[in-house]
Amino acid sequence: MKNNIVVLSGGVGGARFLEGLIQAVPQEEIVVIGNTGDDEEFYGLHVSPDLDIVIYTLAGIVDEKQGWGFKNETYYTMQRLTKLGNDAWFQLGDQDLATHIHRTNLLKQGKTLSEVTDELVRHFDLKIKLLPMSNQPVRTVIKTSQRIISFQEYFVKNRAQDEVRDIIYQGAEKAKPVSGILEILHSAKAIIIAPSNPLVSIGTILSIPGMNKALQTSPAKIAAISPIIGGKTIKGPAAKMMQEMGMEPSAFGVAEFYRDFVDVMIIDEQDKNELKAIEKLGIKVGVTNTIMNDKKTKAHLAQAVLAYIDA
Amino acid sequence: MKNNIVVLSGGVGGARFLEGLIQAVPQEEIVVIGNTGDDEEFYGLHVSPDLDIVIYTLAGIVDEKQGWGFKNETYYTMQRLTKLGNDAWFQLGDQDLATHIHRTNLLKQGKTLSEVTDELVRHFDLKIKLLPMSNQPVRTVIKTSQRIISFQEYFVKNRAQDEVRDIIYQGAEKAKPVSGILEILHSAKAIIIAPSNPLVSIGTILSIPGMNKALQTSPAKIAAISPIIGGKTIKGPAAKMMQEMGMEPSAFGVAEFYRDFVDVMIIDEQDKNELKAIEKLGIKVGVTNTIMNDKKTKAHLAQAVLAYIDA
Repeated sequence: MKNNIVVLSGGVGGARFLEGLIQAVPQEEIVVIGNTGDDEEFYGLHVSPDLDIVIYTLAGIVDEKQGWGFKNETYYTMQRLTKLGNDAWFQLGDQDLATHIHRTNLLKQGKTLSEVTDELVRHFDLKIKLLPMSNQPVRTVIKTSQRIISFQEYFVKNRAQDEVRDIIYQGAEKAKPVSGILEILHSAKAIIIAPSNPLVSIGTILSIPGMNKALQTSPAKIAAISPIIGGKTIKGPAAKMMQEMGMEPSAFGVAEFYRDFVDVMIIDEQDKNELKAIEKLGIKVGVTNTIMNDKKTKAHLAQAVLAYIDA
Repeated sequence: MKNNIVVLSGGVGGARFLEGLIQAVPQEEIVVIGNTGDDEEFYGLHVSPDLDIVIYTLAGIVDEKQGWGFKNETYYTMQRLTKLGNDAWFQLGDQDLATHIHRTNLLKQGKTLSEVTDELVRHFDLKIKLLPMSNQPVRTVIKTSQRIISFQEYFVKNRAQDEVRDIIYQGAEKAKPVSGILEILHSAKAIIIAPSNPLVSIGTILSIPGMNKALQTSPAKIAAISPIIGGKTIKGPAAKMMQEMGMEPSAFGVAEFYRDFVDVMIIDEQDKNELKAIEKLGIKVGVTNTIMNDKKTKAHLAQAVLAYIDA
């Protein structure tokens, strides 16, 4: 396991980075630790959005425009579920539903989420190892000025319009990392924090007991890619959430959040003026183009990150 | 409740008869007791084929050719479930799946099958009362020369080719009729046994403790329509099964099976030579066209049955 590149990943940003990484590193050497804090039950079906985004993206079947779900998807079941009086705000396509039905069925039969995830990864002919952060339920909930809602409700239903007062990782204190994760982090060749939401994707992974310490004590070099570029996020509400949580919505803010364990912070060329401030935190900085538009720019980013780790 | 026409029904034959009955009697006066012995879990979803056939047929959305499922159905989820390694012999369409997802979810939330069924009936704008025979699981299993299989496996997967040695209503001895059924049978204006499989549709309903006795002691007149016409069944394996179980595969054989409670046996014109033999069992006989080709012949059969009951 000494040759593993371990990636901590959330949804779309993480998956796109991994598309580059598999061009640079054999899939067999990649271990992805996926966020399951956004998991939710819809219509009694267990949906693991971030795990599925990684699988669908690497399998080349993802709807690239929206970043999740199948491309060329239909919604016949969903339309009928809506007619039957179910909420319609979380749209699940017909092919996507097969994943959730299959997962829910296997979980019901007593398999763990990591076993089910592994089975799905194999079914989609991927060679990476994809580990949910935990087999116990951890739910990222958002405290707004008015109420406490799930991340999906905050993000998908309410389009991230509520003001975030706090982020709570429900169940985290009782959860355990999936068996083997701490060892994998310890023996990794390198650890990469994908350009995912620090608060609700990576933060949730870090909330699992033992995870933060494993990163701090791992002999492996740890690089993090800032998901904030020019004060904004490419996708998702990271910048807005960071600001509302009192953090600076910048590459520097991300570096501060990861300062306990990160060795190299990868920032976009647009943000090179933040280089010195980040270095003052005792963190090395790699500057490159971090905007992933196509296969080539994704591969370039992965190679640049690996080069900065080796430097 | 004194005005109820109560119908004991299986799948396609029962549903087609009900299509005629709702032309003759207001839906509000019809109570259907549906067979749930063919219920099965597919991919963790609770499927109630006979209840759904009744609902879809009366709602006018059934695939009339095959007699079950939605018309103009697609199979995107199913195709993907198959790719994920699931059995493909029980094909569930995308719209149909919504029913099963919805039902499974409500059952998981603690609702009873009768509550869920009632909700589905209302969603499809029907006014009949559709009662599953029991809220407890009863499974019709077929003992063949080689093994014991579920009815769906016998019928759908193996196309009814195995020789039937015995039929077992698993769980029946512990099951209770859905609350109110025995009273409804007692106070009914009339009771009709639909032209369904006597052994695996009606027989399963009769296997629920108290059901047979309620029919025997009900003051209501009871009519049964033979599903066997000229020694054959229009749809399904009833004739073959009856023969293999040592019964005569004829209207007379059906009458014998129901002789404990039936007052009027409705047989097809093709079978009028069996009239006297059935009358010798102490059962009145009504002869009419029982082949239901279209809306008109369905209505005609319902009217004929009601007329024979009133005679």
